[in-house]
Amino acid sequence: MSEAIGRLGTGAGGTRNISGTHHAMVTLEETLAELHQKEAALVMTSGYVTNQAALSTIASMLPGCIIFSDEFNHASMIHGIRDSKCEKHVFRHNDIAHLESLLAAADPTRPKLIAFESVYSMDGDISPIKAICDLADKYDAITYLDEVHAVGMYGDHGGGVAEHEGLMDRLTVIQGTLGKAYGVMGGYIASSRVLIDMVRSYAPGFIFTTSLPPALTSGANASIRHLMESGDERAKQKYNVQVLNDMLHKAGLPVMPTMSHILPVLVGDAVLCKQASDMLLNQFDIYVQPINFPTVPRGTERLRLTPTPCHTHAMMFELVRALVWVFERLGIKADVESLEEVA
Amino acid sequence: MSEAIGRLGTGAGGTRNISGTHHAMVTLEETLAELHQKEAALVMTSGYVTNQAALSTIASMLPGCIIFSDEFNHASMIHGIRDSKCEKHVFRHNDIAHLESLLAAADPTRPKLIAFESVYSMDGDISPIKAICDLADKYDAITYLDEVHAVGMYGDHGGGVAEHEGLMDRLTVIQGTLGKAYGVMGGYIASSRVLIDMVRSYAPGFIFTTSLPPALTSGANASIRHLMESGDERAKQKYNVQVLNDMLHKAGLPVMPTMSHILPVLVGDAVLCKQASDMLLNQFDIYVQPINFPTVPRGTERLRLTPTPCHTHAMMFELVRALVWVFERLGIKADVESLEEVA
Repeated sequence: MSEAIGRLGTGAGGTRNISGTHHAMVTLEETLAELHQKEAALVMTSGYVTNQAALSTIASMLPGCIIFSDEFNHASMIHGIRDSKCEKHVFRHNDIAHLESLLAAADPTRPKLIAFESVYSMDGDISPIKAICDLADKYDAITYLDEVHAVGMYGDHGGGVAEHEGLMDRLTVIQGTLGKAYGVMGGYIASSRVLIDMVRSYAPGFIFTTSLPPALTSGANASIRHLMESGDERAKQKYNVQVLNDMLHKAGLPVMPTMSHILPVLVGDAVLCKQASDMLLNQFDIYVQPINFPTVPRGTERLRLTPTPCHTHAMMFELVRALVWVFERLGIKADVESLEEVA
Repeated sequence: MSEAIGRLGTGAGGTRNISGTHHAMVTLEETLAELHQKEAALVMTSGYVTNQAALSTIASMLPGCIIFSDEFNHASMIHGIRDSKCEKHVFRHNDIAHLESLLAAADPTRPKLIAFESVYSMDGDISPIKAICDLADKYDAITYLDEVHAVGMYGDHGGGVAEHEGLMDRLTVIQGTLGKAYGVMGGYIASSRVLIDMVRSYAPGFIFTTSLPPALTSGANASIRHLMESGDERAKQKYNVQVLNDMLHKAGLPVMPTMSHILPVLVGDAVLCKQASDMLLNQFDIYVQPINFPTVPRGTERLRLTPTPCHTHAMMFELVRALVWVFERLGIKADVESLEEVA
């Protein structure tokens, strides 16, 4: 009865501050706070919305805030930073010296926020989190770390690169996704209770939208809890990344240097990149997407590979053999050795 | 095999332009195009994201575009309009004469876009769609109509107020939600193939985010298809709205004038509004949320009621009786008659 009458007020769904904060959502936010060892967490409908809403709100609520942003930050972070209308300085990708020079040049009395990612998804490199936290301490800045390509996959409990490196407590805000490794959808931030309450109270992208339904939040919670207890999937993925990376190198394919599970194979031309993707699908039933401008700079078009824990040695060998065939047919610059050596 | 290898490229989920455009998504977009009698539709993760991404992209892609925006437009539309960086003129709510004066004063050679809603959710009033389309024709403007509070609930097939009034073909873009009446989550636009392709190709809020999973898109499609064929739910809701509105009036409760299924009951004070909501929940097991600033202007705080097709006469009477009790206890200004007359 009360449930039926409840719908008088809200209809299905409902915004978070009205009726959308259901039991499964509260449970999920408690799990996320525990995962990152923070006081609280706040879930939104996507990682994109989270970055846009959280960064714009946090920065605009700090009077005179200056934002220091890695040049390779994701489109959603750039969107949030732009919406904050704060003064912004872009530092060269993972360049600590450049970041320090910008911090040192800024007014020491103004609030500062450093926004960066742990794993950068297009190149597979990892940021110097500790060095950036040291600079944040030195120049009294808060830190906002996007771990979207790391949660579930790094750290003893899947807390990301910051957990792996024992640095979670040094970050003001950790942002992550319920998609990718966790296989569902949605995004979140974990931070202090006060900061989370501020975003909850002031971010239009959080306030004026429908909550994620219980089926998704419960699924995400189960996925996170599983990966908090089980390290098997992380170990197997790490092993598969090593195996596939070795195979690609031995085959002479132009795999770009990587520090993570992301293995970019350089093509360097948008048309060839699309053709390679089409040939892999049509001739080999293998689906690898072309990554072209504006996602990566022109001239660095690539195929991007990420083995899962479930891929077998045979599957990865089949992929490498197909890539060699396609790269040769299309005349993509590569130094292919004998395939026997690869296997 | 190909499916397993497919995951090498993308992980779970995936963005729409990379791997997230699955069969259930394509089916849903075809249904939405059919619902609104448009060439194409584009689904995003929420109505908020849809308004933000579509309005900012459409307007910014039209060189020199001037936007004319109803003053009561939703926060998501305001966000999109702001992000477009276009010149903007706000017209008084549903004020055709004011809109025309702004259109007439603008440079006739510049592109123009009129952004408005059909049902305004806080007051329950409905915009003069035909008169706005007539002005759009006269001043060569395109139109963007938010039907979030109308799809599923109005029109012979649930196409919204524009369908009910036979005006869908006169609107350039119709925007809607997969939440609310359809009970799932997500948002969309329906329009010409060219415009949809433009938003698909240029909107960061669409490009750089994970697709809705098949369970949600299939659920939404089933819900829309059902309400395209069945008018029962619409008829029953319309009847219940009339019954509840009559009950509220007869009880002397300060129900605000409405043209839709939304019945706002004025409280006029944020503290009393919250207290009324708490008392309804704690004393009567009835959950009605307080609607306070910034969602509505200060001094117009209210409780907002929307009966579903499934509420019974007895449930609605119980609600009205509880409201009378609460309003009397809290001394909220109302002109309560005898409850006998209400039932």
